[in-house]
Amino acid sequence: MTTTTPAIIVDEAKGAFRQGTIERRDLRPDDVRIAVKYAGICHSDIHQAREEWGEARFPMVPGHEIAGVVTEVGADVTRFSVGDHVGVGCMVDSCGECEMCRADHENFCEKGMVVTYNGVNYDGEEAFGGYSQEIVVSDRFTLRIPDGISLDEAAPLLCAGITTYTPLQRWVTEPGQKVAVVGMGGLGHMGVKIAAAMGAEVTVLSRTTSKEEDGKAYGAVDYRATSDDATWEDLKGTFDVILCTISADLPVDSYLGLLKPFGTFVNVGLPENTQSVHFGSLITGDKTLAGSNIGGIKGTQEMLDFCAEHGIGATVEVIGADEVDRAYDDVVDSKVRYRYVIDTSTITPQD
Amino acid sequence: MTTTTPAIIVDEAKGAFRQGTIERRDLRPDDVRIAVKYAGICHSDIHQAREEWGEARFPMVPGHEIAGVVTEVGADVTRFSVGDHVGVGCMVDSCGECEMCRADHENFCEKGMVVTYNGVNYDGEEAFGGYSQEIVVSDRFTLRIPDGISLDEAAPLLCAGITTYTPLQRWVTEPGQKVAVVGMGGLGHMGVKIAAAMGAEVTVLSRTTSKEEDGKAYGAVDYRATSDDATWEDLKGTFDVILCTISADLPVDSYLGLLKPFGTFVNVGLPENTQSVHFGSLITGDKTLAGSNIGGIKGTQEMLDFCAEHGIGATVEVIGADEVDRAYDDVVDSKVRYRYVIDTSTITPQD
Repeated sequence: MTTTTPAIIVDEAKGAFRQGTIERRDLRPDDVRIAVKYAGICHSDIHQAREEWGEARFPMVPGHEIAGVVTEVGADVTRFSVGDHVGVGCMVDSCGECEMCRADHENFCEKGMVVTYNGVNYDGEEAFGGYSQEIVVSDRFTLRIPDGISLDEAAPLLCAGITTYTPLQRWVTEPGQKVAVVGMGGLGHMGVKIAAAMGAEVTVLSRTTSKEEDGKAYGAVDYRATSDDATWEDLKGTFDVILCTISADLPVDSYLGLLKPFGTFVNVGLPENTQSVHFGSLITGDKTLAGSNIGGIKGTQEMLDFCAEHGIGATVEVIGADEVDRAYDDVVDSKVRYRYVIDTSTITPQD
Repeated sequence: MTTTTPAIIVDEAKGAFRQGTIERRDLRPDDVRIAVKYAGICHSDIHQAREEWGEARFPMVPGHEIAGVVTEVGADVTRFSVGDHVGVGCMVDSCGECEMCRADHENFCEKGMVVTYNGVNYDGEEAFGGYSQEIVVSDRFTLRIPDGISLDEAAPLLCAGITTYTPLQRWVTEPGQKVAVVGMGGLGHMGVKIAAAMGAEVTVLSRTTSKEEDGKAYGAVDYRATSDDATWEDLKGTFDVILCTISADLPVDSYLGLLKPFGTFVNVGLPENTQSVHFGSLITGDKTLAGSNIGGIKGTQEMLDFCAEHGIGATVEVIGADEVDRAYDDVVDSKVRYRYVIDTSTITPQD
């Protein structure tokens, strides 16, 4: 037995989206049924729908930035009730038993986490994401969205929020530290807001200064263009942490030169090519080059609570179900300010 | 006024060493005069004497692994007395006032530390190193060699010891962690001894298993050849920390694959070429690629005390002053087991 729900579906790599229906499983004892209200469009949705990250599964319903309202809970669910505001992020299951799961790092589950879409559940059920009006998820992977964050501004926190919160939380060790955020897109604008809320002195490093006003409104005290040679000279040895949110090829040694001794350059983007680094840039000043990939469920809840406490949501443009193809092109062209979220009530199945 | 002292001198890049004399300054109020007993031969001595690291200063007296006995102290020196066993490492002065100096990281002094040789003191005095019978050094840069470490086995601790202790002390966060040491040379054999003394479960990764018996005697529980493909497969996801002591080009992504999530690959070698790394190797598992360069004076004293407490010295071959040229070739050919130290009493000036 399943339930039919409207969804936004792509049938082949690089294909156009259509509005149709998919099936959701009946509730297991630990499941939560969620009426999806908003689903963010993450750049990684585009990479997968266009099959740029290796073979993908079609038909695909993308979406791992999901915010909605609980409509039904399974027999064993005690932490959630009908009407609760909840979210779902990049994963919907993990083994729960390995060292990583036990340490609240389900994202590095040794069995492999079940991704929210473009994958299969452990029992073989196809995983469909948040571009739909309903989703059924284990309560272990359901997050509470605190009062004070609207659901549209909350949705992108489930990926862009946790992706930037995790490395900032790990590497920014005290208030007042100097943090640079590279890139002012969907991830970067969240990085600026979160780092500023942590008490860091934030500088944005972007190709140009076209988004300077926004960056400063989000809490940055400085905003520099990486296309300006003076930036690299002026800021040498300045930062405790550089959070890099872009996926382009990087002048890694130059970025390491902007760090103080013992500083960390942490990357959450995924450039396609291998990058070059001279180890002298790391050794001189005991510097660190790190990577970070989303976060665990406990950390995601912490991030949501932190954002609510500091009045932080994503800056969003709400779009309808028929605008997804155009929105994808805009994201690729860096035209979005700063995250598209789909209003799922606009999905109208045409089949 | 100066004092003449016998020394081992090289007059030009790649030249042969000769035994002659140099001048040491008269004591300033904060100076300590040290009768050098043993001076270790560090691979970086060779790079500098052969001018492989950019322009060098000649005539040169290398040596920054210095162990000896105090023979005289300046008027203001209270921490050292005649007869004390002391050491000198890679630096002999720093500004003492910058943020890094105040935080006990003189090695990253903003004015630039004064290196023990192949450099000049702030007042312009040429810096000559430890291949000599006497050295005069500020008490701030004089280390106490605890009872229980013989001076010949202590000398290499002043560079090889601190170079491996600093990253292990920073990145090995609890006993029982799995640590790999890459390379079993002068640095590597110290890394094995120190990591084992910290309670880590140590594996050596070396080109071949020719030094396995020694590695296990120094505390390693496993010893694998990097030339064997099975090593890379068997040890995937195994280590919390990998300490890399070699200066060759590295398959960085493969090494990162040997780390557990949240693991750190820390490099103290300095490959000439830029290295390639795919950021996916860092992002998958929130991994870290770090560099480390010697350590500050406080850390160096801690390291010496740690080594004394755990009965650790370098494994040395004591050589005479006339064997330095041959020893350099042996070091380059990886023939030394595991550090040459010069018995400075054998220096016989021929001029």
